[in-house]
Amino acid sequence: MSASARLIALDWGTSSLRAYLLGDGGAVLDEVSLPWGIMATPDGDFAKALETATAPWRRVHPDLPMIAAGMIGSAQGWRQVPYVSCPAGPSELAADIGRQAADPNIPLPIVPGVSIDGDIPDVMRGEETQVLGALHLAPHLFHRSLLVMPGTHSKWVSVQDGAITDFTTYLTGELFAVLARHSILGRPAIEAARDVPPANAPVSWDSFERGVRMVRDTPSRGLSSLLFSARTLVLAGRLAPSDSLDYLSGLVIGEELRGALAPRKAGDGGPLALIGEKTLCERYRRALVLFGIAEAPIIAGASAAGLWRIAAQSFPHVACA
Amino acid sequence: MSASARLIALDWGTSSLRAYLLGDGGAVLDEVSLPWGIMATPDGDFAKALETATAPWRRVHPDLPMIAAGMIGSAQGWRQVPYVSCPAGPSELAADIGRQAADPNIPLPIVPGVSIDGDIPDVMRGEETQVLGALHLAPHLFHRSLLVMPGTHSKWVSVQDGAITDFTTYLTGELFAVLARHSILGRPAIEAARDVPPANAPVSWDSFERGVRMVRDTPSRGLSSLLFSARTLVLAGRLAPSDSLDYLSGLVIGEELRGALAPRKAGDGGPLALIGEKTLCERYRRALVLFGIAEAPIIAGASAAGLWRIAAQSFPHVACA
Repeated sequence: MSASARLIALDWGTSSLRAYLLGDGGAVLDEVSLPWGIMATPDGDFAKALETATAPWRRVHPDLPMIAAGMIGSAQGWRQVPYVSCPAGPSELAADIGRQAADPNIPLPIVPGVSIDGDIPDVMRGEETQVLGALHLAPHLFHRSLLVMPGTHSKWVSVQDGAITDFTTYLTGELFAVLARHSILGRPAIEAARDVPPANAPVSWDSFERGVRMVRDTPSRGLSSLLFSARTLVLAGRLAPSDSLDYLSGLVIGEELRGALAPRKAGDGGPLALIGEKTLCERYRRALVLFGIAEAPIIAGASAAGLWRIAAQSFPHVACA
Repeated sequence: MSASARLIALDWGTSSLRAYLLGDGGAVLDEVSLPWGIMATPDGDFAKALETATAPWRRVHPDLPMIAAGMIGSAQGWRQVPYVSCPAGPSELAADIGRQAADPNIPLPIVPGVSIDGDIPDVMRGEETQVLGALHLAPHLFHRSLLVMPGTHSKWVSVQDGAITDFTTYLTGELFAVLARHSILGRPAIEAARDVPPANAPVSWDSFERGVRMVRDTPSRGLSSLLFSARTLVLAGRLAPSDSLDYLSGLVIGEELRGALAPRKAGDGGPLALIGEKTLCERYRRALVLFGIAEAPIIAGASAAGLWRIAAQSFPHVACA
């Protein structure tokens, strides 16, 4: 913690609350991660959760400005902030932010999400802020790029001239989770885990890549048929039960890549980069290689950088104090 | 129940046990359906379940022969019966059946399942018997046909000259169930159901067909992206929460049809027919129409007919008593 603290920045999503104390230029001075996503905030009391999470910082810096992004701005969050339409860049995202306070008594502006209309509407909340952060951290992505954000609901975001011009969501992470936990496909791994707890088991990259290749090399088959191979290969003794979830992970991530890369040739959308949790991004990086995309750097720290950038644009005293 | 009773036939699957008392020519004289699938047999005691289910019949006809098909012949069932390879017709399925008794003391032969080897292995247990029954009930399917068997694990079965030559499994029913019960896609319907219990709600065929068309008309998108539209259309106020599960059902069944029909032109595999539970088959029938297949009759009673046919072939005294 330093005297140069300038901003408290919150990435407040469905399953976690990450709070950052940021200093000059957006440097991360301190951070805290709590399992207090909007679906699991103690007593549903957002004000108290904010107070508890940031108390140590506010004791030292009582008047620091704050900013938040993520599902905290949804109907299930603290205050519903209207979506901004594409193209959405820093100006659009920051435009109304002074009026987006979470609570009249608490000066916590919330960054709006971004939406797309059309036959298939789409929405994001939180990822828009990570995109701005990534463009700040990796300026070569600014003019034209394709940003892949793996997660429960993965996003593929097209960027032009620093603004989000289009994006598509894939239910990949949630699909994997419900199949692994609740379907017949998860059973062999559950039984295998009685012998080797999965926390101690390394990723079977062979099985993961086998799943990715299965999807890539079987274009005539839809996902719901390929999923069944995660069962039959085990039954046939050709896939170890303990490796079956890595194979399943390869199938669903492969399906995402098959869908996302089908309409474009590699390089069409400019350079590609990955934003998100490191281990999950590594799965995507390896899968992308199998789809012919050898270069996909993983960008860390995008949320804090994006929150800083929006705050600095909206509240000049943050950047210039 | 009649003096002409000839056979007790059991369709014993993962989630239910259906028992039939069959008379001359396979006529169904009586039947009983119990929620005693192999995963839910009371105390895991198959012998006792069989005894209880068939006691009223066996009191009158103590020496009736019996036969069973389905997951009861799997590793998780009463006795593991080896799979038969394709092509599998009545002779192959009946060949070893005299030696497939469930228990040395209980004369219950079990019909073997069918398996396919190759890059993507596949298996069935129980459906092979329904196929034989369907060919018996609808002889025009015998020479060449494509049989669609909707369910937890849907099967598409190619038939030539009365034998199963190829098949593919789709995880469609289980995919729908885990997404509806455990993912974010099921939530709007759960909330809507507080007002209108779903048992009282009719199927929204409009929403179902909208989901099918969404998959059919968006070939560039994979399933994991289209699934997310079941959420965003509700968020955008363009799909009623109470209709969202019918839309989701249309998406996953549409995905199955997209995958299954892609490699062939309509009519390529001969006439097509549906075998299975009536309401579910009606969903498939409507979806097939949207994919340009106007003729897909629904065949009922295939299990009992198939069990009869295999028994009559294996135990001549059944057919000729």
